[in-house]
Formats: sequence, C-alpha cells, structure tokens
Amino acid sequence: MSEAAQTLEGWYCLHDFRTVDWTTWKMLSSDERQTAIHEFLSLVEKWNQTGEQKKGSHALYTIVGQKADFMMMILRPTMEELNEIETEFNKTKLAEFTIPAHSYVSVVELSNYLPAGEDPYQNPQILARLYPALPKTKHVCFYPMDKRRQGDDNWYMLPMEDRRSMMRSHGMIGRTYAGKVKQIITGSVGFDDYEWGVTLFAEDALQFKKLIYEMRFDEVSARYGEFGAFFVGNLLEEERVAKFLHV
Amino acid sequence: MSEAAQTLEGWYCLHDFRTVDWTTWKMLSSDERQTAIHEFLSLVEKWNQTGEQKKGSHALYTIVGQKADFMMMILRPTMEELNEIETEFNKTKLAEFTIPAHSYVSVVELSNYLPAGEDPYQNPQILARLYPALPKTKHVCFYPMDKRRQGDDNWYMLPMEDRRSMMRSHGMIGRTYAGKVKQIITGSVGFDDYEWGVTLFAEDALQFKKLIYEMRFDEVSARYGEFGAFFVGNLLEEERVAKFLHV
Amino acid sequence: MSEAAQTLEGWYCLHDFRTVDWTTWKMLSSDERQTAIHEFLSLVEKWNQTGEQKKGSHALYTIVGQKADFMMMILRPTMEELNEIETEFNKTKLAEFTIPAHSYVSVVELSNYLPAGEDPYQNPQILARLYPALPKTKHVCFYPMDKRRQGDDNWYMLPMEDRRSMMRSHGMIGRTYAGKVKQIITGSVGFDDYEWGVTLFAEDALQFKKLIYEMRFDEVSARYGEFGAFFVGNLLEEERVAKFLHV
Amino acid sequence: MSEAAQTLEGWYCLHDFRTVDWTTWKMLSSDERQTAIHEFLSLVEKWNQTGEQKKGSHALYTIVGQKADFMMMILRPTMEELNEIETEFNKTKLAEFTIPAHSYVSVVELSNYLPAGEDPYQNPQILARLYPALPKTKHVCFYPMDKRRQGDDNWYMLPMEDRRSMMRSHGMIGRTYAGKVKQIITGSVGFDDYEWGVTLFAEDALQFKKLIYEMRFDEVSARYGEFGAFFVGNLLEEERVAKFLHV
Amino acid sequence: MSEAAQTLEGWYCLHDFRTVDWTTWKMLSSDERQTAIHEFLSLVEKWNQTGEQKKGSHALYTIVGQKADFMMMILRPTMEELNEIETEFNKTKLAEFTIPAHSYVSVVELSNYLPAGEDPYQNPQILARLYPALPKTKHVCFYPMDKRRQGDDNWYMLPMEDRRSMMRSHGMIGRTYAGKVKQIITGSVGFDDYEWGVTLFAEDALQFKKLIYEMRFDEVSARYGEFGAFFVGNLLEEERVAKFLHV
Repeated sequence: MSEAAQTLEGWYCLHDFRTVDWTTWKMLSSDERQTAIHEFLSLVEKWNQTGEQKKGSHALYTIVGQKADFMMMILRPTMEELNEIETEFNKTKLAEFTIPAHSYVSVVELSNYLPAGEDPYQNPQILARLYPALPKTKHVCFYPMDKRRQGDDNWYMLPMEDRRSMMRSHGMIGRTYAGKVKQIITGSVGFDDYEWGVTLFAEDALQFKKLIYEMRFDEVSARYGEFGAFFVGNLLEEERVAKFLHV
Repeated sequence: MSEAAQTLEGWYCLHDFRTVDWTTWKMLSSDERQTAIHEFLSLVEKWNQTGEQKKGSHALYTIVGQKADFMMMILRPTMEELNEIETEFNKTKLAEFTIPAHSYVSVVELSNYLPAGEDPYQNPQILARLYPALPKTKHVCFYPMDKRRQGDDNWYMLPMEDRRSMMRSHGMIGRTYAGKVKQIITGSVGFDDYEWGVTLFAEDALQFKKLIYEMRFDEVSARYGEFGAFFVGNLLEEERVAKFLHV
Repeated sequence: MSEAAQTLEGWYCLHDFRTVDWTTWKMLSSDERQTAIHEFLSLVEKWNQTGEQKKGSHALYTIVGQKADFMMMILRPTMEELNEIETEFNKTKLAEFTIPAHSYVSVVELSNYLPAGEDPYQNPQILARLYPALPKTKHVCFYPMDKRRQGDDNWYMLPMEDRRSMMRSHGMIGRTYAGKVKQIITGSVGFDDYEWGVTLFAEDALQFKKLIYEMRFDEVSARYGEFGAFFVGNLLEEERVAKFLHV
Repeated sequence: MSEAAQTLEGWYCLHDFRTVDWTTWKMLSSDERQTAIHEFLSLVEKWNQTGEQKKGSHALYTIVGQKADFMMMILRPTMEELNEIETEFNKTKLAEFTIPAHSYVSVVELSNYLPAGEDPYQNPQILARLYPALPKTKHVCFYPMDKRRQGDDNWYMLPMEDRRSMMRSHGMIGRTYAGKVKQIITGSVGFDDYEWGVTLFAEDALQFKKLIYEMRFDEVSARYGEFGAFFVGNLLEEERVAKFLHV
Repeated sequence: MSEAAQTLEGWYCLHDFRTVDWTTWKMLSSDERQTAIHEFLSLVEKWNQTGEQKKGSHALYTIVGQKADFMMMILRPTMEELNEIETEFNKTKLAEFTIPAHSYVSVVELSNYLPAGEDPYQNPQILARLYPALPKTKHVCFYPMDKRRQGDDNWYMLPMEDRRSMMRSHGMIGRTYAGKVKQIITGSVGFDDYEWGVTLFAEDALQFKKLIYEMRFDEVSARYGEFGAFFVGNLLEEERVAKFLHV
C-alpha cells in the first residue's frame, strides 16, 4: 500500500451556480424585483459581516455562457453553515427566479507533500491559506479534478516519493504565475464527485488558460489529471447586482 | 472461475433523496404547510415505532449542495415494505413539493472474507450489523461503488486468497477509524446500478474525507474501486423539520 | 471472422417503465380516478385474454426506488402489436398521469450454443421458452447487457468453441438456481441500445443478488459482461392496482 | 499517414424523431385535431410530390418504445432544404403537440473501397444509391456508428489495404441479406456526433437483428465498431396517420 | 516535462446556441412578434457597428436538426463584453421564446508550432487571424476537441518536435482546402469543457465532411483527437430573420 499524503483542512466550501429565469423574473413588477434584489443584498451584507469577523468568506461572479448566470462561492467553518446559507438563499424571493445549475461541496485543503519536521498549523502563512479571504479579482475559473487510476497511469499506486517529486515540479509552474493567478485548492473526497476543486482568481482571464495549458504538459497533469467541467466568470460587485438583474 | 465471496444479508435498504420545490411550497398558506409538515412527521413517527420494535430503522439528513435537499434512508425486512414506504411518502402533501433527486436500492451486506468454521448467523455482533439501528451522528456520507473489471485490473478474475488479503488490509484502515466513522455496507447487485452502497456516519464530516482518501491509496481502492456520485449531509432531527421547511 | 452463434427467436418484447405523477393524479376527482383505473384494468383484461389464447403474455410489477413506479412487460408475436399496445396505453386517461421512465425493445431469444444435430423448433421445451407465459412471482429484476469488445477482452473475436465452453459454465451456475430464479433472455441487437435484456423472476428477491453476484466471478461475466441499469420490483396483482393508485 | 477512403455523396439526410404529447393533444377539440392532421398530411403530400420529381425522398415510421413515437426521414439535395422542412414542420399545429426526441444530420454516402479505374458517377446503379427513393418496407432500423480509435484497435491507423479487405468481408455478409434488408449508409463526419448513420429497411424486423448480430462477429465490427442508440419502427402509411393520432 | 507550445490569443469568443419555443412564440400577437424581431435586429445592428469599428465580429446561422435552431457566434476583446452581450440577449423579448441549447466559451488562438525568431505579433496576417472578421459563407460547422491523454496515446507526453511535425502534416491537409474551407481555432483550456473549439466556414457543406474525414486518417487526429458534439448550419442573413421567425 502506498502512503497517503497528509492534508491540512480549513474552511468548508460551497460553489453554488445559478441560472436566472429571465422570463418569469420579467413578470414581476419593478417594485417586486427591487424588493427581491434588496433581500438578496441583505443576505450578502450578512456574509460580508461574517467575512469581516474572519468567520468565513465568499465571492460573487457572473458566469460566461449557458452553464450558469452567476456563482456564489461560500467558505464557512462547518458543513451545517454551508447548508444553512444554501437553504436561506433557496427561501429568498430571488431564488424563485433562479434555477440550480451546478454545485460543488469541498473543504479548503493544503497537501502536505512537504519536508517533515515542521508543524504546519503553527505557520501563519498556512493558516492564512486554510482560512482565506477570497480575493476580488476581475475573473474566476472553477473546475473539479481527479487523479487518474487507469491501467499504467495510476496515481494512487505510485510511491510517495514519486508523487512528491511530481507535485513539486507542478508547484514550480504555479509559482511562475505568482501575482497573476491566485489558486485555492479544495478537497472533495467523500463530499462530491471529484477528488478536488480548483478555484483560480486573476485580473487577466488569459492567465487561466496559460497556466492550465502549461501544466497540462507536466507529467502530473498529462498522465494523471482527469478534469471535470470548467466555469469561467467575471466579478459581480455588489453595486453591480441591481444592474445585472435590471430588466 | 474464481470463487465468489460468501455474503450475509440483513434488511433491505432504500436511500431516497429529494429536492424541495421552494417556489411552489411558498404558494401554500401557512396552515397548509403546517398540515403537510404534520402529516410527514406522523409518517416519521410510524417509522420510529417500527424502529423501537426492531423491525427496521431509518435516518433523516439534509444534503449539502444542489444534488438534493434531504435524504430518507430506510431499512426494512422486505422489498415490499420499502416500496410501500416510498409510495406512502409519494402520496403525502409534502411530496407534492419535492422532486425525486436520486435513490438507491440495496440490502445490508456483510462480506464473509473470514476464516471458515464459524456460523456467522450465531454471532450477535454480526446480527447487530445485519439489522442495525441507524446512528444519529451529525453527518452522513453516501456513495455507490463497483469493483473494477478492466484490462489487467479485474477484481472478479483474482483468486479468492488475493481478494481476501486485500480486503483484510482494507478493513485494517477502517478499524483505525473506529469510534470516528460508522460504516454500513449494502449490496446492490441485481437491485441498482452499482454493486454496493456505502453509508458512513460521523460526528466530524472531515473524517469521511480522511478515511476515503487514506483508503484510496490501498490497492483494493486504487486499482479496483470505481465510485459513483457522493452525497454529504447533516442530521435532520425531527424537531428541526419544521424549521427546515419554514418559509 | 468468428462464427456467430445461432439464435432462436420467439415473441417480441416491450418493457415499459412508468412514473406516476402523483401531484396531478390527486387533482382528479375520486370518480375520475376510478374511471381511469377501470379503463386501465380493461386494457389488462384484454391482455389476459390474449395470454389465455397463447397469443402473448404480460407482467405488471411496481418498481422500488425513483427509477420508475411500475413496469409493464409485454410479449407479442409482432413489433406492430407492441407498438399498438404502447400507443393504446398512451391514449388512456391513466397515461396522462404517468411519465415515461424507461423502455426496452427486444425479442425472446435462445442462444444455440448446443450440440448440432437437433432441430430445436421440434422441441416442446424450447417452444415453451420461446413463447413463455410470464410467471407471477413476487419479484422481478430487469437489466440490459452487452458482451464486451475492449482491448484483449473482446467476446466477438473469440473462437466459437471458447464462447460455447464459457456459456456452458455460465449455464451451470444458472442451473443451480433452478426453482429459485426463472430467467428470460431477450435479444435486442438492432432493436435497442444493449445486445440483450435479462428478466429474472423469483419469490425471494435475494436470489437475484446471489445469482448475479456468483455469475460475476465467472469469466464470461467477469471479463466479457457489460451491464446497464438494474430495475427491481414487486408483483402488482390486478386486484392491488386500485390500492396502489388510491390517494 | 493512412490514405483516406474516397467517398461519394448524394442527398443530404435528416432523421427527425418526435414524441407525441398525448395529454395536451387530447385537450384539443376533435375539429382542431382534424385540422392539425390535415395540415401535416398536406406537408407529406408536398414531400410526395418532391419524391415524384426525384428531387428528394422521405419515409414515415412509428417507433417502438419510449425513445420516440414517430420518425420522419428526409432526403434532399441541400442542407438548406433539410433546414426548411424541419422549420416548416416545427411551425405546424401538430408540432405543438410533439416533443423533439432525437435527430441525425448526414448525407447519403458510398464508400469507394473499390478497384480503381471506374468512374462511379457514370454508373446508374451507383446514382440510384446516391439519390434513392426510400423503400416502404414494414420495418425500419436506425443507428449511428463510429470506427474505433482506441489503443491497438485504431481503424484510422490501419493501411488502406487492410481496411479495404475488412470492408469487403463485411460487404459479403450484407450481400447474403440481399432481398431481405435494404441498407442506406449516410456519412455524418462534420454534421453530427457519429461518423455514420445506418438505416435498414426490411419486411421482417428479425432480419435487422440477424444481420447486425452476424456482422458483429466480423472483425470490422468486433474490433472497430462503436455503436450509438438503436431505433426500430413500423411503417406509418399516410392513410394510417389519422388512426395513429386518433384519441 | 514536455515543453508547452506557445500560443497567441486574440478576441474572446462565445458560441451561443438556442432552440426556438415555437409553441409559445405562436401565442404572441403578430405585433408582439414584430416588436420582438425588431428588438433582436437592433441588437444585431449594434453588433454590426462594433464589427465595422473592428472591435469585434459575429455570425448568425440556423442549425440543422434538433440540437438547436440558431447560433450566435460572438467575438469580443474581453470576457466582460461576451457576458454583457449574452445577458443583453437574455433580457430581450425574443429570448423569452428561446431555450438555451448549448454554448462554448473560448478565445481565438494561433498555435505557435513555428520556427523561432519571428515576432508573430508584428505579422499583419497573424493579426488578421487573431482579430478576424467572421466570413458570411453559406455554411458553418462547429465542434470542440481535446488532444487525447490515454495510455500510449498521450499527446501531452510527446516531445515538442514530434508534436510540431504532426501538426505541420495536419496543416498541410488544411492547406489543400484553402479557398474551400476557412477555419477558426479557439482555445478553451480553463474556459470550457474541451481544449479547443473549431469553427469551419464553407460555401459547400460537403467540404466540412471531406476535410474532417481526410484529417481523421492523419496521426494527430487518428491517435490523438477526441471530438465533442458537431453542429452544422446555414447562414441566417439579417434580412432572412423575419422570415425564419414568421409563423
């Protein structure tokens, strides 16, 4: 048996993608729509307060293409809180005019392919990555992924040393994008259909493509990466919500 | 031909996942909703009585993410009883406001990769596992799985002794989670699309991830495990049902 | 080129799975529901008469889980008759309150991996299997399957003798379930998405699992079987139809 | 690089499968239904005239099972005409009561795995096959297919001579069904999701199964065939349309 | 690690496929439909002006078969603009009568498998290909694709020189179709589910099939190409929009 990599976990994470039902939304009176938008923004304001108290974080992005119209990404200390936020949104007026498009349940994860001897939970940089304040970059990219277990390409049968060395090379590529792309890895084994979720943040959407394409030639992706659906989007600032929903 | 592992079977099992149609649910009057909730709780009360008489067991959990809003897991001595419970729920008022999201039909199973000479049905511990009272832990995790039959990775072509030895090693990992994760294996060959269902119960949701991830490096999962969709949820106590459905 | 096994064909077969739309069904008046049930039972009565005249056969089962609520399995001498029965059902009042859930089109088939020299169509036992009166056991199990054509596991590239010998060993397992499980094989090459449909009938649902699991270790299943969705159900006697549909 | 087989192309082809929404269809008055049927038959009459002028051809079949209720197969000289016919049907009254179930876009194709030196476009038999009048046999069978490109089973990496020889052997089987099954091959590379559509016509539906099953043991199918969904149906003569739609 | 090919990127691209809901569209009054068509054409007119200012480009095609009724292909300098156009369309009256059928998000890409030493961004021909004015040919073909990473057929593990040489041979085939087929490659790594989108334009739809089929025998497609769904369509000139939508 191969040795499992040690992982560190932080906040639980829900990616919640929604499609707007514009046809029924337009059937509301302007006042009703204002009320619905106001109620939604009050919810977001509560999330903001949680963020200020460092008890969680969230991000709002519109999504390009028909896969969804917008995404709410929510970080919280417990699964119960994710569930409550999801249900609270579902009970809002706005939710009556959205259709669930996709969701992903995971937990912020750092993979400890690191030299031994260090207690990562004493490391403030690591703590900041386990309980991150989500950035407000112009663009977001989300996709889930697995490590392949197929014939001769079986990640989980490799010796720890090989996995560590490949992950190190992978991390090197990532580091050349420092300042351009911020990456949050969330683990989803036991929580959702893939093993990890990857959420990338960048000011320039092209950097998503550059980074992922370059990594795809790296052995860890080329031989061992299995990718799910990709979502790309643009920052939805709170002050832009009313305009986005204006009809 | 390889020798089939002997299995022991207990109660039949239905996992029934539902999504709430919040929009139409809100169209009911408050009284109508109370009546619907009351009717549902009466059904659950009947299930409780069956449980007290040791003629079955059940569990209620809300599900995180868009895959479903809640899950009813039902154990009963016969397929007919599962069918009756499912139909009885379908005829309730509440069911008019839920959408079937997923279901799984199986039977509690113990796999007898054990030394010969023992009559397992004389073993009270085994009986307790075949006819279990479902725990009321804070979290649940459900997923179906197959043993792989693909090229050189064909579980069903392996000699019994190899399978037994791999399962023993697998069980070892499980045992290190004793007290943290309770696992119920249900067999579904001939009943549903995968060969087994796995239902895990834990007070700490992170233990699902830790356990499954550690097992994934074990040869029996790494080479031979094929996994379906994963569902994770939070205990829905009866006294919390009204709050959950309050709009 | 490998030699194709000779097959014998009997009646055409339609498996028609339906989900009840309980919400709209409840909107009918009690009288309207009675009329709809009566109309459906008249249809079944016609099928009974066809069965008594040995011009076909049928079976009615409720299905456990969300895949469907009930299944009609229909055997008839021609594709046109299957189509007529399906359309006749579609035009009934009851059909307005059911949603098509799944269907399978095939023809009763006996595979002639037998010693040469015998004219099977002179054999009354074989005729009884080609034009069977469907049993009324308490449980049914249906699934479609293919023989695998993948890399080194390619059934259709094997010499006839190897296939015959593997099928013989397979049949041996089946025979040990005689009296417990009755099996009807229907061929669907050219008619539906898999190559065969398998319908099993048993008084004890556990025997489906035992039989299929034991067979899975047999080389013909282990290396060459590809399985579709599994459906399991309980006998729906005509006298129980009204109760099943009572709301 | 392997040499591509030369192909000859004739009329463009649309297979258009529809499911009848019987529930809403029954809500029409008898007069409205008559008007809708009459309008549809006028459309078919136009298609008949096109057929008589040898500017296209069409076929109407009911489909067995839930995949669809009927299929319109349309041959025309241009993609634009297919598009117009489809849109014209979509605008009819009858179309309001049908649900698109499946479609396939392709072009009649003859594959020129033939000895060189002949100009096929001078051959009247070949012209008759490129611009065929669709037969009115009692049964139809449609399925799409690919040639496999997988590991060692990669059709597109084989030398032309091997492909030609395998196709010749394949054609031999087809020829033994002459008079029993008429086959129309349509190419769909660049037009739809598979590489070819196969439409078979026969008086005896069993011949579809016999032919396809026998071919499956032929190396070109056994190793290189990948098949999509299968549809089987019965001739829908114009004079039977009103009866079929009578409720 | 293999070296990643350098890529050049131009305008972002949205393929937006829609199905018309003819039934509800017919429920509008003729005036309401005129208003909706007029509003849509005003939108197209804005896009035309953007095109004239060389700040983007677009194309309108009807789609053959049930996959969609029409496609809008939009090129713009930023992801935000794509998102705005999509949302603006979603808020139109016409959009209330269309159903999202498929979409694809990508960016115009040129793959730099070229000799070193040249600065491609100084090359006017390359600039014209990165910021193209979409042609108005009679036909369009769209499909997404991946380079395969499977067992021995793993594009991303090949040395750069092998990839360059295969791509050169591939380009040779493309060049023989110059004047017949215009091809626009868009990269979608990080943006959508495949790695590339391919959009072909031609006066003769048959050339799509000829080109793609010939390329399929080229090693880069035969061994390394994985293809998604194919869409084929006919030019929808603005002056034909009213006729297309006339009911």
